[in-house]
Amino acid sequence: MKLGILGGGQLARMLALAAHPLGIEVVFVDPQPDACAAPVARQIQANYADPAALAQLADQVDRVTFEFENVAAESARYLAEHLPVFPSYQALEQGQDRWSERSLFRRLGIPQPEFLPVDSLADLQAAVTAIGFPAMLKTRCQGYDGKGQALIREASEVARAWKSVGEQPSLLEALVAFSREISVFGARDAQGRLAIYPLSENSHDHGILHLAISQPQDPFQAQAAAYLTKLMEHLDYIGVMALELFQEGDCLLANEFAPRVHNSAHWTLEGAETSQFENHVRAVCGLPLGGTEALGHAAMVNCIGQMPDVRDVLALSGAHLHHYGKQERPGRKLGHIGLRCPSKAALLASIEKALTLSPVC
Amino acid sequence: MKLGILGGGQLARMLALAAHPLGIEVVFVDPQPDACAAPVARQIQANYADPAALAQLADQVDRVTFEFENVAAESARYLAEHLPVFPSYQALEQGQDRWSERSLFRRLGIPQPEFLPVDSLADLQAAVTAIGFPAMLKTRCQGYDGKGQALIREASEVARAWKSVGEQPSLLEALVAFSREISVFGARDAQGRLAIYPLSENSHDHGILHLAISQPQDPFQAQAAAYLTKLMEHLDYIGVMALELFQEGDCLLANEFAPRVHNSAHWTLEGAETSQFENHVRAVCGLPLGGTEALGHAAMVNCIGQMPDVRDVLALSGAHLHHYGKQERPGRKLGHIGLRCPSKAALLASIEKALTLSPVC
Repeated sequence: MKLGILGGGQLARMLALAAHPLGIEVVFVDPQPDACAAPVARQIQANYADPAALAQLADQVDRVTFEFENVAAESARYLAEHLPVFPSYQALEQGQDRWSERSLFRRLGIPQPEFLPVDSLADLQAAVTAIGFPAMLKTRCQGYDGKGQALIREASEVARAWKSVGEQPSLLEALVAFSREISVFGARDAQGRLAIYPLSENSHDHGILHLAISQPQDPFQAQAAAYLTKLMEHLDYIGVMALELFQEGDCLLANEFAPRVHNSAHWTLEGAETSQFENHVRAVCGLPLGGTEALGHAAMVNCIGQMPDVRDVLALSGAHLHHYGKQERPGRKLGHIGLRCPSKAALLASIEKALTLSPVC
Repeated sequence: MKLGILGGGQLARMLALAAHPLGIEVVFVDPQPDACAAPVARQIQANYADPAALAQLADQVDRVTFEFENVAAESARYLAEHLPVFPSYQALEQGQDRWSERSLFRRLGIPQPEFLPVDSLADLQAAVTAIGFPAMLKTRCQGYDGKGQALIREASEVARAWKSVGEQPSLLEALVAFSREISVFGARDAQGRLAIYPLSENSHDHGILHLAISQPQDPFQAQAAAYLTKLMEHLDYIGVMALELFQEGDCLLANEFAPRVHNSAHWTLEGAETSQFENHVRAVCGLPLGGTEALGHAAMVNCIGQMPDVRDVLALSGAHLHHYGKQERPGRKLGHIGLRCPSKAALLASIEKALTLSPVC
């Protein structure tokens, strides 16, 4: 079996590393000459929307999946006419546009922060009046890692916020006074079978995920898994999906979902019976899903902007390095440290050291 | 850092899969156009003794290691003149020749089956008189997976045995009435630090390893580890080494050592904190060694001659597939099934199913 991936970054790299032991070769499309996935998979060097490249990919592989959701809808639709594409482009489209995503949450009865659509400065002014301060303005499309967002704390910041998101169609959301950010993720296969992981507690720094800690006994597991299941079943979803949630008091409020493997689930490489990468490949390729049970106590620390010294990382108890082979650049995700320890106390000690070794740069 | 490997079979493939997350690229030398390691590492397609290929390898990488011990001594020596080569060619040479190996065991006080050198039919006849029946004739060099061996049960089989091993310099060994075969393996780094794994209990079929089960609480662990340590320290060894032993009553008798990652340790991919492949790469590349603690209860079943149906394997509880991407051929190692289960009882049930799915063909 040959699997095609649109995108050749670290997610494609880790998908390919998981695919090889299953006897599955990976071909990916990426315009970058130094794509992360190139050392472990075959590259078609082209833009994701290049019709010739897509035709070539469709010719060479049996299935196609995506590394990210911001794929041109026509590319996904073209591929789906020629071979199985998972997740479906309908699912991608839902995740691409924050308005469709929020509307879907509403239809499925998944609680979320109050929100209003904003298509103009006048809309924004009306929305802040309705929602109040502080509120967060987010573009409907193309936002990630804190990009395309503006915090509005008072009336004087409204006009600047509208400018700073590029005056694009957006949503205004009530800013949630959350006690923590969590994510829940799992795989669903073509027969509708589910494999849901223990949820993850996440910390961001400068808007970028820095730390994710596995929470195998979390009291909110069942609730979070129920929301994720609703989403996956509604979309007849195939592959791994992640749902980000805020906890506010005793409530979980949905923030966004990602129709792909997710950064906050990287700890599954060491901390779960089957990694999210392997389960995504299994689901997309029609293979039985693997177990999602926790192995020890696990966490992940992202290496952002600068790689820590490999020796220092590997000397840490329970640490495993995942280097993406990228050039350093401020704010860029270059790798991550996977931690798996026999006790929560040992894990917390290793996390502290890993955060010191790998500050956000 | 770039790591060179002589050989491009499944061991090189799994070494490369372990090297990528550490940010280490692999270049390997192998004459086969369809080498197993090719999809995950860069190949120099040439014979292991080709001077131009070795020069090219030395030019492209920072360190060199081996996938197997039957490398021409001149190749290893040539490379060692140009860059660090681990394990050293002296260690390789010791393991290549059964006579040197046995003599080393004797010098180090490691118990072993009685043996005598055999260079002629007359030698062999004298040796069977001294050692008695049954005895095993083994060529000094190039034997593996039961090749280059002949069992001698009675006087009438002596001449045929000598012919069947090709009348090559050999050893005659007393056949041990062993209760089990085990192996012990671990890594040693340049500073002499050791990382030794729980030992493995092994079963062969037609002379080929079929099943290896991790034994984390084995009463012979300390004894086996002490012999392995003696060997590694004597050879000032760097990398992973495996030592195969027979248990006869309360004694362990050394059979042979392998100066490389070893088939009986493949379960470390799932069943240990750090796999043997990662620890070999770490040792050879001068990085801190990773933990060797057992994760759950683990075993490995080889897929020999024919690959089982991937779906059947992945549907097994705790099963992980390792496909080597090879063409099927009787007696060929094509992949293995890694098993990791929460209890010994669950492991034994999964082993039984895995053996049924993957009989030796």
